[in-house]
Amino acid sequence: MIKVGIVGGTGYTGVELMRLLARHDGVQLQAITSRKEAGMPVAEMYPSLRGHVDIAFSTPADASLDQCDVVFFATPNGIAMGEAEALLAAGVKVIDLAADFRIKDVAEWEKWYGMSHASPALVGEAVYGLPEINREQIRQARLVANPGCYPTAVQLGFLPLIEAGAVDVTSLIADSKSGVSGAGRKAEVHTLMCEAGDNFKAYGVGGHRHLPEIKQGLARAAGGPVGLTFVPHLTPMIRGIHATLYARLTRDIDVQALYQQRYAGERFVDVMPAGSTPETRSVRGANTCRMAVYRPQGGDTVVVLSVIDNLVKGAAGQAVQNMNLMFGLPEGQGLDVVPLLP
Amino acid sequence: MIKVGIVGGTGYTGVELMRLLARHDGVQLQAITSRKEAGMPVAEMYPSLRGHVDIAFSTPADASLDQCDVVFFATPNGIAMGEAEALLAAGVKVIDLAADFRIKDVAEWEKWYGMSHASPALVGEAVYGLPEINREQIRQARLVANPGCYPTAVQLGFLPLIEAGAVDVTSLIADSKSGVSGAGRKAEVHTLMCEAGDNFKAYGVGGHRHLPEIKQGLARAAGGPVGLTFVPHLTPMIRGIHATLYARLTRDIDVQALYQQRYAGERFVDVMPAGSTPETRSVRGANTCRMAVYRPQGGDTVVVLSVIDNLVKGAAGQAVQNMNLMFGLPEGQGLDVVPLLP
Amino acid sequence: MIKVGIVGGTGYTGVELMRLLARHDGVQLQAITSRKEAGMPVAEMYPSLRGHVDIAFSTPADASLDQCDVVFFATPNGIAMGEAEALLAAGVKVIDLAADFRIKDVAEWEKWYGMSHASPALVGEAVYGLPEINREQIRQARLVANPGCYPTAVQLGFLPLIEAGAVDVTSLIADSKSGVSGAGRKAEVHTLMCEAGDNFKAYGVGGHRHLPEIKQGLARAAGGPVGLTFVPHLTPMIRGIHATLYARLTRDIDVQALYQQRYAGERFVDVMPAGSTPETRSVRGANTCRMAVYRPQGGDTVVVLSVIDNLVKGAAGQAVQNMNLMFGLPEGQGLDVVPLLP
Amino acid sequence: MIKVGIVGGTGYTGVELMRLLARHDGVQLQAITSRKEAGMPVAEMYPSLRGHVDIAFSTPADASLDQCDVVFFATPNGIAMGEAEALLAAGVKVIDLAADFRIKDVAEWEKWYGMSHASPALVGEAVYGLPEINREQIRQARLVANPGCYPTAVQLGFLPLIEAGAVDVTSLIADSKSGVSGAGRKAEVHTLMCEAGDNFKAYGVGGHRHLPEIKQGLARAAGGPVGLTFVPHLTPMIRGIHATLYARLTRDIDVQALYQQRYAGERFVDVMPAGSTPETRSVRGANTCRMAVYRPQGGDTVVVLSVIDNLVKGAAGQAVQNMNLMFGLPEGQGLDVVPLLP
Repeated sequence: MIKVGIVGGTGYTGVELMRLLARHDGVQLQAITSRKEAGMPVAEMYPSLRGHVDIAFSTPADASLDQCDVVFFATPNGIAMGEAEALLAAGVKVIDLAADFRIKDVAEWEKWYGMSHASPALVGEAVYGLPEINREQIRQARLVANPGCYPTAVQLGFLPLIEAGAVDVTSLIADSKSGVSGAGRKAEVHTLMCEAGDNFKAYGVGGHRHLPEIKQGLARAAGGPVGLTFVPHLTPMIRGIHATLYARLTRDIDVQALYQQRYAGERFVDVMPAGSTPETRSVRGANTCRMAVYRPQGGDTVVVLSVIDNLVKGAAGQAVQNMNLMFGLPEGQGLDVVPLLP
Repeated sequence: MIKVGIVGGTGYTGVELMRLLARHDGVQLQAITSRKEAGMPVAEMYPSLRGHVDIAFSTPADASLDQCDVVFFATPNGIAMGEAEALLAAGVKVIDLAADFRIKDVAEWEKWYGMSHASPALVGEAVYGLPEINREQIRQARLVANPGCYPTAVQLGFLPLIEAGAVDVTSLIADSKSGVSGAGRKAEVHTLMCEAGDNFKAYGVGGHRHLPEIKQGLARAAGGPVGLTFVPHLTPMIRGIHATLYARLTRDIDVQALYQQRYAGERFVDVMPAGSTPETRSVRGANTCRMAVYRPQGGDTVVVLSVIDNLVKGAAGQAVQNMNLMFGLPEGQGLDVVPLLP
Repeated sequence: MIKVGIVGGTGYTGVELMRLLARHDGVQLQAITSRKEAGMPVAEMYPSLRGHVDIAFSTPADASLDQCDVVFFATPNGIAMGEAEALLAAGVKVIDLAADFRIKDVAEWEKWYGMSHASPALVGEAVYGLPEINREQIRQARLVANPGCYPTAVQLGFLPLIEAGAVDVTSLIADSKSGVSGAGRKAEVHTLMCEAGDNFKAYGVGGHRHLPEIKQGLARAAGGPVGLTFVPHLTPMIRGIHATLYARLTRDIDVQALYQQRYAGERFVDVMPAGSTPETRSVRGANTCRMAVYRPQGGDTVVVLSVIDNLVKGAAGQAVQNMNLMFGLPEGQGLDVVPLLP
Repeated sequence: MIKVGIVGGTGYTGVELMRLLARHDGVQLQAITSRKEAGMPVAEMYPSLRGHVDIAFSTPADASLDQCDVVFFATPNGIAMGEAEALLAAGVKVIDLAADFRIKDVAEWEKWYGMSHASPALVGEAVYGLPEINREQIRQARLVANPGCYPTAVQLGFLPLIEAGAVDVTSLIADSKSGVSGAGRKAEVHTLMCEAGDNFKAYGVGGHRHLPEIKQGLARAAGGPVGLTFVPHLTPMIRGIHATLYARLTRDIDVQALYQQRYAGERFVDVMPAGSTPETRSVRGANTCRMAVYRPQGGDTVVVLSVIDNLVKGAAGQAVQNMNLMFGLPEGQGLDVVPLLP
C-alpha cells in the first residue's frame, strides 16, 4: 500500500482527491493537513465523506509527511515550492496540483504569479504531468507539476493538429468556459451563487495565468513559439470546462482520422464520432477528456470541442493518474468512475 | 455472474441502473429494452456510458429476458404488471422500480393510478423493497416492489418515532422537496430549465400518488391508520430529496438516541450528530439516507430532516440493494460510491 | 420631489432600492453611503444601473443625510439604532430594512441579536412596516421597522386564519424556503455557487432570528401567545421565498373565501383561485405576496402556500411601499413592475 | 393609443411582449391569439401577468387582427409569411419576431429553413429591424423582420470594426453562448432542467440558421462577402446571450475609441470602459446590448464581448423599439426598464 499525504485538503481539489483515493485500493491515506482546521474530522467538514474517510485534519507538524510515499499539494500557489525540497530529500515523491513547477521559465512564472520562486532549481527537474505527452518521464519523476484545468483541456484539444504541423500556429484561439468550482472554495463575492448564478461572463481577457502554461506546451509540440488568444469565461455550473478551439488549416487533412489516431491508445481521451458534441456533464466526476472535431462548411477553419471535469482530469484525477504512473500501478487504478448523469 | 435485464432503459432510472451495474462485479448486463430506441447503442444516447456499457437497446422480443436471472422494470407505471407473471414463471426474479406492486389495496391503487390492475394476484406476493423494514422478506422474494422516492425519505424519517409509539400519528406532516429528475426524462413543459429553474413551487397539494404508499408503510409501523399531510415541492436542482417531517411527541424521549439506535446496524442510513443539517448534495450519487432530528426550543414538536438522492436510494440504488439481498450477495456490493461534492 | 438617502448601499437590498427608486417619479436619490466604496460610481459596481443611477458612493460625512426627507438603512443589524435618533431630530424620516426596531421586547431582541440595543427608547415609537396590518400607523410614522423577508411571507400567510380565530395557535408550523440572496452579498463559503448550487438544506432549525419577529406579529393577531415551529431552508435559486404553512382548524370554515375577503382590498397580496400553486418566479422583481390555501383531503389541516420576492416585498419594495404611505403618495407608486418570467 | 395584436402568444417571446407592452403607455393590447389555448385567460397561463393583462387568448378568427394598428408575430417560423399580406392590405403594420422575412435571398432562406417561402414578394419590402443600422427605413416600414437573438449580439459587436474596414473579413469568428430560453417553451428533452442544467455544450457547429442571417448583415457592412465561423453553445442559465467575437486587425486602430464613437448616440448600445467585462445579468430584462473591446497583449487580434437579453434586445424588446420607430413614438418608450440584478 502506498502511503499518501495531502497538504491543504480543505478546498475542492482536496476533497476530490479524497473521493478518488477512498476508492483506490492501492493506497492508504495517512494524513491531510490544514493549519486552520487541524483537529476537525474530515467528514465533519465534508459529510459526503462520512463512512469513507475517518481521519482528521492535522497540523503540518503532526502529519509526519516525510513518512509518506507520496505527498499531494492541494494548496494555493506558492506553498509547494517551499516544502518540496525537504520531502524529496526524505525520499517522498511530490505531486503539486498548484502552479509552482509548471512554467520552465522562472522569470516568466514570477511575472504571472507575482512572487519570487523559492525553489528554481527544482523547476528544471519537475515533470509536467500531462500523461498524454509525458508518460515516460512521469514514470521516472520524483516531482510532478500537475497541469492546470484550462491547460489540460486546451492542450489535449490542440495537440493533434500542432503535432501534425497542419495549422497556422501564429493565430490560435481558445475560447474556454469553466464552471465555478475552478475558482476554488474561497469566500469571495464574485463566486457567490447570487453573482455567478444565472449569469455568464468573460474574465481575464487581458491576460490569464494559464496563458503562458498553455503556450509553453503548445510551443513544445510546434517546435517553436505559438500565437494564442485565450479568453476564459465563467459559466453558471459547478463542474466542467468546455474549450472551443479555432485554428486555420495550412493543408487539407482528415481531421477526424487525425484525432482518432492520435488518441487511439489513450484511455482517458475519448474522440467522439464526427458530428457529435461533447457535453461537460458527460465527464462529470470522471477522468476523461472528451472531444469532437469539425470543419464547418468544409472550410479551412477547424473547430475542436474539448471537455473535462475541471476537478478530475483538470486536477485531482490527473494527479492520481500521475501517481499511478510514478509508482508503477495500472494507470487507471482508482479512476474507473462512471460519470454522474444527470 | 448474475444475468441482468432492464426493461425501459432510456429514462433516468435506467441510466442510473447502468451506472451502478457497470461497476458491480457480480453482475452482467445482458439486455436493455426500448421499443423506440431499439438498435441504438446505449452509449450513443448516453455518452457518459461510453467505455462502460457497450450493448445497444433491443426490442423486448430480441432481449430474451427470460434467460436473465433478474429483470428490472425502469418503466412508466402499468408496464411491469403486464409482464411480471411470465418472467416469474420462467424463473426470473423481478424488481419493479415503478409503482405497480407497491400498494396492497388494489382498489386504492386503481383509484390513484387511474387504471385497472392487470395482475392483482401478484400484488399480495410482492415484497415492498425497503430493506430497513423488510430485509428478510426481500431475501426470499421473487418479486420486489421498489419504493418511491418520496416514500423512502419520508418513511425512513418517521419510522423510529412511530415504531416507538412516541408521537401522535393522527397529525403527521411531511413537507418534501424534490429535484427535477424525480419527474423523469419526458419532454414536458413544466420541467424545462426555463420553467423549473430559478423557481420554487408546491404541487400535488390536494393529493399525490405517493401519499397512499407512505400511509400504508407508516400504518404498518403504527399498527393502525395514520393521518398524514404530505406536500411535495419542486426545487431547482437536478438530484435530491429533502423531507422535513413534523410530529407531536406524546411522551418525553431522547430522540437523538432513538434514531441512532434504530439505525445503528443500517449501512445505508446515516444519523448525523445532534445539531447537524443534512444537505442533499452530501448523498449525491450514493445510496445513503442521511438524517438529523430536532426538538426546536425543547418543545414537543419533533422535526426530522431526511435526505436521499432520489435516483439512487430513491430508485436505482435501492433496486440494486434489493437485488443483492435477493441473490445472497453482500448488501452493499456495487453501491460503495463516494458522493460527488461539489 | 422627495429627497432620498440610502445608508449602506452596496448589498442586495441597496441595489434593489436603487432599481425601484430609479423608476419612481416622486423621488430624487440624493446620496448613498458606503465607507468602503466611497468615491466609486454606483454604476461601476453595478453595471445594471449604468444609465439609471449616476451618483457615486459617498462617506457618511459627505452625504448630508440630514438634508434628506427620508433615509433608508440597507445596513447590517445594529447600524440604524445608532444613527436614527439624530436623523429624526433633524426632521428626517427613517426606514430601517434591518432588524433594529422590529422587536418590541428589547431584552428579547438583545438575546437573539447578540448586542445591546443603542436606542431602546425609539423601539416603542417605531412602527412595524407591514402595511397590510399597520397601514394607518405607517402613514403617521417617523420611524418604520421594515419587516424581515420570512416574517412577511409567513405573517401574511397565517393572518387570515388567526384573525378569524379559526386555528389552534399553539401548534403552527412554518416550513420556509429561501433563495440565496436572502443571505446578502457577503463573501461567505456557504453561499458560494459551489456550496449552495444544486443543493437543498435546512438551517437554523434550533432557532432563527426571524422566529421572535414572526411570533410577535402572530401573537398580536391572536391576542395572546402562539406556538410556532419555524424551519428555514436554503433552496438553489437567487430570489424568492416560499412559505408552506400548516395549522389545525378549530372549526369548519371556507378558507378560500376567508382569504379572498381578508385581502380583497390589498393591492400587493394576491389570493389565487382554489387549486392553484403559486410559484416564486411569478413574483420575481415585484412587490406582490401571492398565495393559495388548501384543506388536503378535506381534513382539518389547512395548508397555506405564500410566495414573495425576498428582495422586493421582503425588503426594498416593501420599504418603498412604506415610504409612499409615510409621504402621502399613492401606495403603489414606483412599484408597478411586471414580474420577470421566465 | 396604438391598437396591438399578438399572434401566437404562449411562448416566451409572447409573454415577454406582454410584460413590456403592459407598461407601455402608448399602446393598448387588443388581442392575443392561440389556437390551442383559446379561451384561457392569459394570466391563468402566466400568473406573473395577474393584474397586468386581463384578456384571454382568442382564436385567430375571433381576434379581429385587421382592426389593429400593428400585429406582432411571436410564432414559429413559417406562420407570418402566410398571414402578413392580408394584414398589410388591411392597413395593419406587421412585425415578425420569427425568421420569415430576415433573409433577402429566398433560395438561401428555403435551404436553411426547409420550406417553401409563401410570400417571396414581401421579402424585398421587409425591413430588417436592427435600428442601429436601419433606423430610417424602419420608420417608413410597413413590415419589419425582427432580427434573431444571436444575429443581434454578433452584428452589433462586429459592425464598428467592419464598417471601419479595420479587420480581415474572411476569417471572423463568433463564439456565442445562449441561455436556454432561446430554444423557446416547447416540450423537448434537450432543454429539460435535467439535461440543460449544470451542463455546457456546443450545438449546430456544422451549420445554424442564424449563420446566413449574420453573414448577410456583415456582408452589407463590408460591401462584400464575409467568412464567418459561428459556434453557438447552450449555457445553463435562463436568459442572456454572450457573444465572444474574434477578428484580425488589418491596421492599427484605437478600438475603444472606435466603438465609443460608433455607438455614441445609441441609447440601447452601451460600450463599457476599457478593461470591463459585460455580464449577461447586467442586461437581464432590459433592451440593452452591452459590450467591451480588447486587444489582448496588444496584438492584432481584437476580441469583442457583446451581451444581450435574448428575449428583450434579442426579441421582444427590439420589436417594441421597432414599433416605436414605425409609429413615430419616442424610440425608448416602454423600454426604460432597469435590469434585475441579482
